[in-house]
Amino acid sequence: MTVERSDIAAAFRGIQDSICAQLEALDGKARFQQDPWAREEGGGGLTRVIADGDLLEKGGVNFSEVYGPLSPTAAKALKVEADAFYATGVSIVLHAHNPWVPTIHMNIRYFEATNSRVTSSSAERWFGGGIDLTPVYVDVPLAKRFHERLKAVCDAWDPRLYAEYKPWADDYFFLPHREETRGVGGIFYDRVTPTAEKPIERIFGFTKELGLAFAPLYAEMATPMRHRPFGPREREWQLIRRGRYVEFNLVHDRGTRFGLETGGRTESILMSLPADARWVYDHRPEPGSPEAETLAWLRKGVEWIHV
Amino acid sequence: MTVERSDIAAAFRGIQDSICAQLEALDGKARFQQDPWAREEGGGGLTRVIADGDLLEKGGVNFSEVYGPLSPTAAKALKVEADAFYATGVSIVLHAHNPWVPTIHMNIRYFEATNSRVTSSSAERWFGGGIDLTPVYVDVPLAKRFHERLKAVCDAWDPRLYAEYKPWADDYFFLPHREETRGVGGIFYDRVTPTAEKPIERIFGFTKELGLAFAPLYAEMATPMRHRPFGPREREWQLIRRGRYVEFNLVHDRGTRFGLETGGRTESILMSLPADARWVYDHRPEPGSPEAETLAWLRKGVEWIHV
Repeated sequence: MTVERSDIAAAFRGIQDSICAQLEALDGKARFQQDPWAREEGGGGLTRVIADGDLLEKGGVNFSEVYGPLSPTAAKALKVEADAFYATGVSIVLHAHNPWVPTIHMNIRYFEATNSRVTSSSAERWFGGGIDLTPVYVDVPLAKRFHERLKAVCDAWDPRLYAEYKPWADDYFFLPHREETRGVGGIFYDRVTPTAEKPIERIFGFTKELGLAFAPLYAEMATPMRHRPFGPREREWQLIRRGRYVEFNLVHDRGTRFGLETGGRTESILMSLPADARWVYDHRPEPGSPEAETLAWLRKGVEWIHV
Repeated sequence: MTVERSDIAAAFRGIQDSICAQLEALDGKARFQQDPWAREEGGGGLTRVIADGDLLEKGGVNFSEVYGPLSPTAAKALKVEADAFYATGVSIVLHAHNPWVPTIHMNIRYFEATNSRVTSSSAERWFGGGIDLTPVYVDVPLAKRFHERLKAVCDAWDPRLYAEYKPWADDYFFLPHREETRGVGGIFYDRVTPTAEKPIERIFGFTKELGLAFAPLYAEMATPMRHRPFGPREREWQLIRRGRYVEFNLVHDRGTRFGLETGGRTESILMSLPADARWVYDHRPEPGSPEAETLAWLRKGVEWIHV
């Protein structure tokens, strides 16, 4: 028995449902609004957004399952010899009101590139995914806990995974024009193709586990912080850091750019943006301030497990 | 007598000075702060920013003169056979406090691609430029006046220019993922190379005139609007429209993307971003509202001269 597209999409739908239910319970006030949408060329999705909650200021949990012709340009960009594709995934970004609560992102995805002119056995298929944390103020014990939890999810499947996927996140969630990481990283993987050694059941299994780990992990990050007092100074810094989040998503994030360029549903793609963001020319936190300390942590290669 | 690089850079510096002096007088409260900067590979610039004025919330007037080796990737992107470049320009974006005052942008630039392996006569050189207006609320008479003024600048040099450069702005200042123009457009031109019919003196002359036309034109747009009362509704719409401005600059604007990718000075490039921006999921103005009317104007091909 092998894993079919429909099994993956069904599992991803279930993960979206489970996460939304847990997030509503965690928030305690706001409910998700949902928008089903269809794509002319094939497939569609279910976008769920939450706003003005007790904990959450703005967030989205997207499911999509899309397919259709793959343009030669897109095939070239993906380095596949294919003329059709199938993709399904769940994408989440959550922005909280309280600046002490980090922003979090999760994505799990499955992709197939197929060639209608040859036998279906030539299909290329792969999984990708990741979770990363973007604190407004880096709290070292919390960041360490975050990485410990991700390492535990990885270790249950393969003790080598975390060492591979953690630096991948450092490299991916990086703003070269700022020489900053987006936050304290997490794990990231892309184009993990089934092999004899690593059968599809295992990659799919790990990807599902990662999806299911998300909501409890976010609760663990948000719960100790959500009622911590803050003032205009912390709010201002939150807005500036959100400006950086916007920069990352619009300038660098491959998913966002690919989606916008290939005519994806704009509102579903850009649900990842914060409610509010601010840009201050050449903003430099005072040396020794908590804001400067946070900046000092935003670099690649920090071994959070061992700090 | 021909036009040398140094003549162009000197004229552009003078235009920056003149514009900043006029904008300070217009604002009446804030003064420009300036940051000279140098580029390791050659050249540098003078970034001038203004904030928290009486009229202006945030704005920048940049001059730069940069040169050095041109990477094969950059040469390929520019479609030139060259290994070195020289570029000088002035870039401006002004965001006002009052939502009735439109955001404005101006850029004038000169570029040379040279090849050190062959004679200097093989250099390719061109000018580019443009001015465009992004109202929060489209005021039709004001937009018409804006285009009339730009057409007059064009007509003084060549009666065919406006008809060529106006649709070029429509195409350039466009957000495909929103199916919206950034604002009411203006004029835009790029890679205008000197020819026998169009000698460098004329293109340079037109480009200077455009630069000098900027400050009076902005004063004409801002003065009738800057004291017009507004409330939270107009402010909210301003923030949402500024979100679109951020999207254009970070996703589409070639200058911004080229600058960030080639290691330009990030703070000078991103001075174009507004102080504050907002994203509301799937925001749709009420039919018949002033916000909906504005959206209806944000399309290509509006002949503002004749509305």
